[in-house]
Amino acid sequence: MRCTQWHSGVIASLGLFLASPLWAWDGVVEKQPFEMDSFTTQSGETIPNVTVGWEAYGELNEARDNVILITHFFSGTSHAAGRYDQDGEPTGYWDAIIGPGKPLDTDEYYIISSDTLVNLGANDPNVTTTGPASINPDTGEPWGMDFPVVTIRDFVEVQRELLESQGIESLHAVMGASMGALQAIEWASAYPDRIERLISVIGGGVADPWLLATLSAWAAPIRLDANWNEGNYYDDEPPTDGLKEALKLVTLNANHWQWANETFNRDWADEERDPAQDINARYAIEQTLDDIAATRAETSDANHFLYLVQANQTFMAGHGNSLEKGLAAIEAPTLMLYSEKDLVFAPQGVRRTAELIEADGTDVTLETLEGNRGHLDGVLSIDQASDTLRAFLQ
Amino acid sequence: MRCTQWHSGVIASLGLFLASPLWAWDGVVEKQPFEMDSFTTQSGETIPNVTVGWEAYGELNEARDNVILITHFFSGTSHAAGRYDQDGEPTGYWDAIIGPGKPLDTDEYYIISSDTLVNLGANDPNVTTTGPASINPDTGEPWGMDFPVVTIRDFVEVQRELLESQGIESLHAVMGASMGALQAIEWASAYPDRIERLISVIGGGVADPWLLATLSAWAAPIRLDANWNEGNYYDDEPPTDGLKEALKLVTLNANHWQWANETFNRDWADEERDPAQDINARYAIEQTLDDIAATRAETSDANHFLYLVQANQTFMAGHGNSLEKGLAAIEAPTLMLYSEKDLVFAPQGVRRTAELIEADGTDVTLETLEGNRGHLDGVLSIDQASDTLRAFLQ
Repeated sequence: MRCTQWHSGVIASLGLFLASPLWAWDGVVEKQPFEMDSFTTQSGETIPNVTVGWEAYGELNEARDNVILITHFFSGTSHAAGRYDQDGEPTGYWDAIIGPGKPLDTDEYYIISSDTLVNLGANDPNVTTTGPASINPDTGEPWGMDFPVVTIRDFVEVQRELLESQGIESLHAVMGASMGALQAIEWASAYPDRIERLISVIGGGVADPWLLATLSAWAAPIRLDANWNEGNYYDDEPPTDGLKEALKLVTLNANHWQWANETFNRDWADEERDPAQDINARYAIEQTLDDIAATRAETSDANHFLYLVQANQTFMAGHGNSLEKGLAAIEAPTLMLYSEKDLVFAPQGVRRTAELIEADGTDVTLETLEGNRGHLDGVLSIDQASDTLRAFLQ
Repeated sequence: MRCTQWHSGVIASLGLFLASPLWAWDGVVEKQPFEMDSFTTQSGETIPNVTVGWEAYGELNEARDNVILITHFFSGTSHAAGRYDQDGEPTGYWDAIIGPGKPLDTDEYYIISSDTLVNLGANDPNVTTTGPASINPDTGEPWGMDFPVVTIRDFVEVQRELLESQGIESLHAVMGASMGALQAIEWASAYPDRIERLISVIGGGVADPWLLATLSAWAAPIRLDANWNEGNYYDDEPPTDGLKEALKLVTLNANHWQWANETFNRDWADEERDPAQDINARYAIEQTLDDIAATRAETSDANHFLYLVQANQTFMAGHGNSLEKGLAAIEAPTLMLYSEKDLVFAPQGVRRTAELIEADGTDVTLETLEGNRGHLDGVLSIDQASDTLRAFLQ
């Protein structure tokens, strides 16, 4: 199985050449399910029939020691790089750095990524996840809010099972942005012997009070929508209006005022309806943000959103009583990339995380990302870190 | 009337001494109504029976040339300084700078402030305002969303009528924070011959796209609450949950991550309910922000909130087609105080406003406010600008 996901059909028969590929990875990706009969959370709750989607780029070498795990952000999926169709364009969020000859070089590394539990895109055909929208086999109904709370550490444990199913015991690197950084940090803290390099992008070692409050504000519109109905909406109208507002807040907070003011103007949404004359008239930027949110809402699930909020809120490296201990457990050389304009993960917290990892002598490189997107520069402007990434991975 | 508001009862009989007060202003404030038979908005809509509350500190001199007008922020009222009861504590938002011997010296200046139209605190006994929650005399019912859209310029025009009713034709200074800064800027742009000094705190010349989007996000939870019912809730349950969420967003955006992280920790709201085990468990910071919002919601009106959002969104100095012209119209020496951490009024926009006012030779002083509150440092940390204010007013 581990050879077929990076190239479909015909190429699979050439498995004997895979240790030294004849061609560079051509960007065609196949999403595959990873199934577990059951998964027990760190809190001790057992979830039957857990399935998550995964995809990979490049090939696993015989020593199985060329693996880079990519962990995804809050509204992300396992689709970090590549195209699903031979004729399509690459649509991965980190295509800029993953591919043949790129810093995360698919000629050299086997790069794997999986959908988390409670992935936001429960209704996205390219996402496979288990969460509140999944059927609880004990009842035959969707779990709704009866689904157990899951944490970043649970996400890591699912990934560990996935990797072990492919005989992978150690990682050349683990890398993720935002919620992906939390997973990467947790990997390096929980399994220091397995992680050779940690790359944390626009994330920190703990959900600080600002992030707790920000996530709380994101969740609120969903619970405010009467259609949410305590999470029981799978036989009825879903809380789409609330979910849209939640997603709009994510877009706004994950960006920065520089982006808004350089991208938009004060045009009205409808040139015949002046907001100074009509209390229901709006500005174009409002309409655009609503349209973006509406598109994302189509493939998202509101309960999954709430579970992701909780997973992020409960995060502290090591999931114990001490952030210092959780970060001291990290032994892997660490690269932290962040933005001083980040309005989600406060830069102060990122710098503090670096200090705590470094406190016992672990090597940490801390670099800023430039751009006008704030938090999102960690996803959209990652190419500026290409040289740093290339050097760090060698 | 103009002599009695700063001191009640007995002192009024000493009117002959008022030009040279026997005692310093003792901080007792009387809120008074200013009534107009009708008010016509800049858009040409006529609103009958308009009443706003006002209060003043210090005394008006005979020349009527010692007047400082204070214009209030989004969730503020005319209560900039002083106590309502002789035995109470001062409860004004700028008590730090208004009073005997303070930078806005009540021994020298007559300082007046009024509630705006559509003031948020429609249910606050210390607020008098006219807006959607007021009775439309033509129908005998609350206006609801039939109330005309009002703008910052309309707020200014009501203040102009109030001042003229006291025989005041020019202002020693006009000063306001945030939405108050918009009013102050509009005063100086619309009536350059009447304004001797402009003090704009944490505000700029225009609602930029970032602010348009931020205000849009603030308004959304109200419209999402089923009780809002297109603004028709005055005979029913008001949209309190939506209003609370709206107010929570205001609190969060008006602060800064430094404040959140220095003020709160990761304590749970209920020490027996662990958010890692219970999807409905929360953190203490969430509960605190909700409690603050709930208290404010008690005296606030949801439709008024929406009208304030619109008033702020539609603002551009001069209310014409050109920000440059609107700001070039300002002739008064200008002091602008702002925070580089402001997440509501982007510092870039504040600096640009200063440049445009200065472009034709108008004197502008631009100073930063320090603190961990971001936008709110303009209200809560104003004392640090005391020397600057004192010098600027002389």
